[in-house]
Amino acid sequence: MKREKAAGVFLLTVGDEILDGRIQNTNATWFGEQLRHAGIPVSESRSVADTVRAIQRALRDGAAHPIVIVTGGLGPTNDDRTLEGAAAAFRLPLSHNTASLAHIRSRYLARGLPLTEPRLKMALVPKGAKVIANQTGTAPGVHLRVKGTEFFFLPGPPSECRPMFEKAVLPLAGKRLRSRRLLRREFWRTFGRGEGEIFAKVSAVVESLEKRFPASVAFGVHITFPYIDLTFEVRDAPRGEHPSKREIDSAASSISDALGTLCFSRERESLADAVAAMLLRERLTVATAESCTGGLLGKLLTDRAGSSAYYLGGVVSYANSAKEKLLGITKNTLEGHGAVSEECVREMAQAIRRELGADLALAISGISGPGGGSETKPVGTAYMALALKDRTRVTHQVILKGLGNREQNRVLAAHWALDALRSELLRFPEAGIPVN
Amino acid sequence: MKREKAAGVFLLTVGDEILDGRIQNTNATWFGEQLRHAGIPVSESRSVADTVRAIQRALRDGAAHPIVIVTGGLGPTNDDRTLEGAAAAFRLPLSHNTASLAHIRSRYLARGLPLTEPRLKMALVPKGAKVIANQTGTAPGVHLRVKGTEFFFLPGPPSECRPMFEKAVLPLAGKRLRSRRLLRREFWRTFGRGEGEIFAKVSAVVESLEKRFPASVAFGVHITFPYIDLTFEVRDAPRGEHPSKREIDSAASSISDALGTLCFSRERESLADAVAAMLLRERLTVATAESCTGGLLGKLLTDRAGSSAYYLGGVVSYANSAKEKLLGITKNTLEGHGAVSEECVREMAQAIRRELGADLALAISGISGPGGGSETKPVGTAYMALALKDRTRVTHQVILKGLGNREQNRVLAAHWALDALRSELLRFPEAGIPVN
Repeated sequence: MKREKAAGVFLLTVGDEILDGRIQNTNATWFGEQLRHAGIPVSESRSVADTVRAIQRALRDGAAHPIVIVTGGLGPTNDDRTLEGAAAAFRLPLSHNTASLAHIRSRYLARGLPLTEPRLKMALVPKGAKVIANQTGTAPGVHLRVKGTEFFFLPGPPSECRPMFEKAVLPLAGKRLRSRRLLRREFWRTFGRGEGEIFAKVSAVVESLEKRFPASVAFGVHITFPYIDLTFEVRDAPRGEHPSKREIDSAASSISDALGTLCFSRERESLADAVAAMLLRERLTVATAESCTGGLLGKLLTDRAGSSAYYLGGVVSYANSAKEKLLGITKNTLEGHGAVSEECVREMAQAIRRELGADLALAISGISGPGGGSETKPVGTAYMALALKDRTRVTHQVILKGLGNREQNRVLAAHWALDALRSELLRFPEAGIPVN
Repeated sequence: MKREKAAGVFLLTVGDEILDGRIQNTNATWFGEQLRHAGIPVSESRSVADTVRAIQRALRDGAAHPIVIVTGGLGPTNDDRTLEGAAAAFRLPLSHNTASLAHIRSRYLARGLPLTEPRLKMALVPKGAKVIANQTGTAPGVHLRVKGTEFFFLPGPPSECRPMFEKAVLPLAGKRLRSRRLLRREFWRTFGRGEGEIFAKVSAVVESLEKRFPASVAFGVHITFPYIDLTFEVRDAPRGEHPSKREIDSAASSISDALGTLCFSRERESLADAVAAMLLRERLTVATAESCTGGLLGKLLTDRAGSSAYYLGGVVSYANSAKEKLLGITKNTLEGHGAVSEECVREMAQAIRRELGADLALAISGISGPGGGSETKPVGTAYMALALKDRTRVTHQVILKGLGNREQNRVLAAHWALDALRSELLRFPEAGIPVN
């Protein structure tokens, strides 16, 4: 009797360093994401140790699936035993592949390195297997078909296995596992509210649709720090049990309405990217003056290529002396109100805007912690100013109610400043009338 | 006949969002790391979908292991089905646990939220199970013993499952799986050379010891971008087949000698932290002037609490106009040599050092890409200057031979500058004679 295969891909990542947490299993995440985008389900992801026995057992379990993708353990060292495991699992002899030998030879000779036994080992493939060329590294990949399952063995380094996956694995996986057709995928990225608050805003729409079409509709709320992302996917379902196009449109627009300006992107872009697009559209320039964030705000604003079109520069006025010397903040302000104050942050923003002749300037001063807090200004306190030609807006808050750590406080302070800039830019007409 | 259990922990992470790459499986990595530190091996890590069938099958496979740790699927929503899966796997009825009910009731009532059916579902546990208190969230954990296997079910959020793991799982896992005692753990973190080059430096020592004591000695070279880490662990082995203390000492010191100053830390600290410690010891202050890194260097120097003791501040002179206005770089320099030049970066470092009265100043100017490169200055070109009172050192390089992306180029440029500062500080006497 022929056993029915599982409905999805079996991912196997080989390596002690994954099991014992020395490295993140980024391959499993990346493959999962690529397969999802292609509408191909993953039914299981497994990591096992570098032993022939563990690999062998996992590959036999994998044979219950139509597609098995294995990464790791193809290199020259002693703990690279994936293909030995495959040979043992399916009782296939290993022999040197001519094309692989030539590839390995040319890679090592080009670097003036000798062809040692361990290096030649990388050319060993199980009988009946095809070789997958490795354009960016040495260890070739292997494609093996056993009893109706396609096994793909790829090297562990992302720079090597990713292009091989795209070229050799994805097309075949798509043919074997044509999943239920994706009718719609919608995405919202928000900043400034928690997961629960975001979910509460959309739960009415979400729950009724999920209840009516459980096999077709999937909503998800996920933290991608510092953002909260919302996904809405609709797939074809048996017996047409999926919402109509009109219902999908209506749900998507209800969600958009409920989120309002909390949603800054319908794609997976960063808040800095969204702000950058608005600055470019309005042809505005921005400058920064940072204290507690130490340069992070400038870094975020320049993450994207072409940022010189809107970002002029700024100062990191970390010490009080730097606030005096670089921005001319007076002793009066620093001693009378403190460096973390409305007065100081206003002067910082105005000074850098003037100095660099920018249209807008952002300034941040706060207490990132863990030390430095007081009763009136606890750790997490941050002041932010946005200076324009004719006015300056100052606000303050206690980030995460004082419960965040230094890194969270800094990342949130910088994004909060970017979000204030975004709010300001939302008031500008699409046409792009300059601010001054 | 009693079947022998596997030798390590079975980790199971439940959730579609892990399989399809929407979230990183940070739980598996974190548990793996904690268990490794406790000397407890992990034999398999598995992720399955949110279905009762998939969970049930995985738990049955898990029963071949002495300890099974499961995370995810304990919450109130429809796709939280882990305990249903456990009930199905071991044919145990589910019933409401009184302590869990009280905990859940108090959490919701405190927030003024009603006790709906899905919320009460979180108090359902399989017959014979004990409840693990959740101090930081709502869904309680569950501890179930079936045929000699300890099953621990924990909620997915790291802030909830981590303390529960430490309190309820780790002590019991340690008792059941007392692993071979760790005799020595050594660690080296390096910056500035590739994985292959680092391995080549230590391979002679490493290979001979691994060959002689394969059951005891484990070396590893891992990329923790932008660093290369080297680990060396020695465990007790059957029949005393492990190196002697003298041999371990000798191997460790040979590795240290071979790495020389490439190794900046024997712990998992950042390069900025290592530099910070040196600056603090020498009581020196530093300032920064950044162009292509946009503030990243300042951000790295202030990642650590207490950074105001050594970091004064700096400028992000991104646009040429900012270089003129904030640092007084002349049109002559900018037009004659360009912003990415030895002359410009030297003037940047000297200007910010003078302006802020710092002992040392670092400046960076480069082409991060993907655009902006030329034949003589390709993408990846970076100039770096280190200014002291009496001299300024300038160097340049093409990062990753022009093959890096924007993010890599920026991170490496900033670390390369930090490393230049470290090299300079290495020349200072331990006693701490100030530089000027």
